[in-house]
Amino acid sequence: MLAGGVGAARLLTGVVRVVDPSTVVAIVNTGDDMTLHGLQISPDIDTVVYTLAGLQNPATGWGIATESWTAMAELERIGGATWFRLGDRDLATHLYRTQRLAEGAALHEVTAEIARARGIGVHVVPMSDDAVRTRLVLAEDADGVLAGTEVAFQHYFVRLRHAVAVRSVRFDGAAAASPAPGVLDAIGDAEAVVVSPSNPVVSIGPILAVPGVRSALAARREQVVAVSPIVAGAALKGPADRLLAELGYESSAVGVARLLAEWVGTLVIDEQDAHLKDAVESEGLRAVVAPTIMTSPEVAASLATVVLDAAR
Amino acid sequence: MLAGGVGAARLLTGVVRVVDPSTVVAIVNTGDDMTLHGLQISPDIDTVVYTLAGLQNPATGWGIATESWTAMAELERIGGATWFRLGDRDLATHLYRTQRLAEGAALHEVTAEIARARGIGVHVVPMSDDAVRTRLVLAEDADGVLAGTEVAFQHYFVRLRHAVAVRSVRFDGAAAASPAPGVLDAIGDAEAVVVSPSNPVVSIGPILAVPGVRSALAARREQVVAVSPIVAGAALKGPADRLLAELGYESSAVGVARLLAEWVGTLVIDEQDAHLKDAVESEGLRAVVAPTIMTSPEVAASLATVVLDAAR
Repeated sequence: MLAGGVGAARLLTGVVRVVDPSTVVAIVNTGDDMTLHGLQISPDIDTVVYTLAGLQNPATGWGIATESWTAMAELERIGGATWFRLGDRDLATHLYRTQRLAEGAALHEVTAEIARARGIGVHVVPMSDDAVRTRLVLAEDADGVLAGTEVAFQHYFVRLRHAVAVRSVRFDGAAAASPAPGVLDAIGDAEAVVVSPSNPVVSIGPILAVPGVRSALAARREQVVAVSPIVAGAALKGPADRLLAELGYESSAVGVARLLAEWVGTLVIDEQDAHLKDAVESEGLRAVVAPTIMTSPEVAASLATVVLDAAR
Repeated sequence: MLAGGVGAARLLTGVVRVVDPSTVVAIVNTGDDMTLHGLQISPDIDTVVYTLAGLQNPATGWGIATESWTAMAELERIGGATWFRLGDRDLATHLYRTQRLAEGAALHEVTAEIARARGIGVHVVPMSDDAVRTRLVLAEDADGVLAGTEVAFQHYFVRLRHAVAVRSVRFDGAAAASPAPGVLDAIGDAEAVVVSPSNPVVSIGPILAVPGVRSALAARREQVVAVSPIVAGAALKGPADRLLAELGYESSAVGVARLLAEWVGTLVIDEQDAHLKDAVESEGLRAVVAPTIMTSPEVAASLATVVLDAAR
C-alpha cells in the first residue's frame, strides 16, 4: 500500500482483517515529516503505526487516544511554540526516533523498530530514508500577507489550519532521494498495489516523486488499485478537495482518475459517485463502485476485499 | 557567582534573600550539557533556574518536584534510552531550548528567556554560547572494560552513577570558546565574585577553561570568595571527594585551597574544618570559618552574608 495518513491507516485496519499482516508492506509518505523542538516527527508513519496498534485517537485522526498533555502545558507556560500538539506519550516516539537517527540508524530501521515495539505485523516502511519535504507556495489570503510565501506542509496543514489557498506544491529533496530499501521490491512483487484514499497531490504525490517509484508502479499498472479520496466532490477529511481545485484539478472522482490514470489500473469510487463510473473509465482506467467511507473496521475490511479482488 | 548545579542553586537561594536579585549574575557551567533524543539539555542551568523558581525537587537535586513521567514510561515501553530521566514538565524546557537554538538564538538569549518565563530576577548566564563539553577518561573498573574509555560527563555521572574511577578530565571545545556576553563584565564589575560550593574540577573547571575567564578572575582576586564543597574531607553531594583524590588532589578544604589559590582571595570553610584554617591560609588565601551546610534557605542566607562580607 502507498500510504498517506488517516485514510491509509483506516484501510490498513481493514486489510489486516482479510490478509496475513506479515504479507503487507505499507510504503508511507514522509513528505509531511518535520523537525520541531529538535525532534524528528513523521506524522503519517505515526498515524499508521498508532492505528494498527489500536492506540489512535479517532476523534482527532492523529496522536494517541489515552494521552496526557503535561509537556505541552508546561511549554505553553514558558512561551514555547505549541501549535503542533505533542502529547506526553506521543513525545516518546519522537524522542526514540530522533535519538536512533542521531546514532546513525536509517529511518526505515527506526520505523521497523517502532512498529515491532508496538507489536505490529504489517511492514511499515518510509518511502525514503532521505529527507523529502513537501513545500507549498501560498496564494492570496484575506489580507494578502501570505501570498507567494512558501511553507512546510505542517505549517500549512496545522499552523494555518489549511485555511489559505495554495498556488503550487513541490517536493524538496525528492530528486536526490532514493526509495527506502524494500520499496521497489514490494511494488514489483506485490499481488496487489493499493493506493490509500489519501490526498493524491500532497500525500501520494511525495511517494511518486521519489525517483524510480513512478516507473515501478507504471510497470505494475494492472495490479495497482486506488481508492478515491474524493466522494461526491468532497474530501472526507482534510483539504484535498479544495487543494485539487486550487491547483487546477477537478475535485471529483473523475479528477482523481485523471491524476492517477497513467499508473493506476483500477479506481474504486464510492457508491455516491456511481453515476461517474463511465466518466472515470473514459480516463482510461477501470472503475469499481463500492462503499468507501470507512465508518468501522468491518466496512474497511469489506473495502479491502473489493480492492484486493480488483487487483486479481 | 560562578555556578555549578545543586550547591550553586542552594547558595543562590540564600543570596537572593540578602541582596536584590537583579544585581546578581549567575555564570553557569555548561560543560555538563548534552544532546539526547535530539534535545539540548543544560543540567546546571536547569537546576539553578528550577531552584530559584521554587520548582526544584529537593529529594533528587535535579528536575521538577511536581513531575510526571509519562513520556519516559512510554519511551521505556518502546525500548528507548531512559537512563537520563526527563520528566514531562522538564521536557518542555528542553523542547523550548532546542527549538530556539535551532531558530538561531544564542544559548544566553534562550537562557534569559527561560529565566524570565520562570519569573526569576537573577541574571542566569551560561559560561559560553559555544559548546564546551566535559569529557572524562576512565581508570580501572572492576572488570577492566572501561579503563581508558573517554565518556561525556553525564555518562559518567548518571549512566555509570559516578561509580568508576577517573583518570583525567578535559574540556572539549574550550580553547575555541568565548565567554557568553556579560560574563567578563560581570566578573570585572562585581562587588563580590562568589564561587559556589561545587566540584572545583568538573563544575567550576569548565568555566575557568573558557579563554579570558581565569585572568579576569585573577584580576579581581581580592573580591573572589569561594565556598569549599569539601567538608570534613567529603563532598556533601556527588563524587567531588573521590574525583579529587583520583586526579591527585587532596580531598580536603586544604586541597580545595590549593586548587583555587591562584585566583581566589578567600575560601569559606565549614565549622567542622575550623582546625584546618591555618593550613588553608598557608596556601596563600584567607580562610573564613562558617556553617556551610545549607540545610535551609535561612542557613543559605547566613552563608551568603558571610561570603559577601568577605569580599568587602
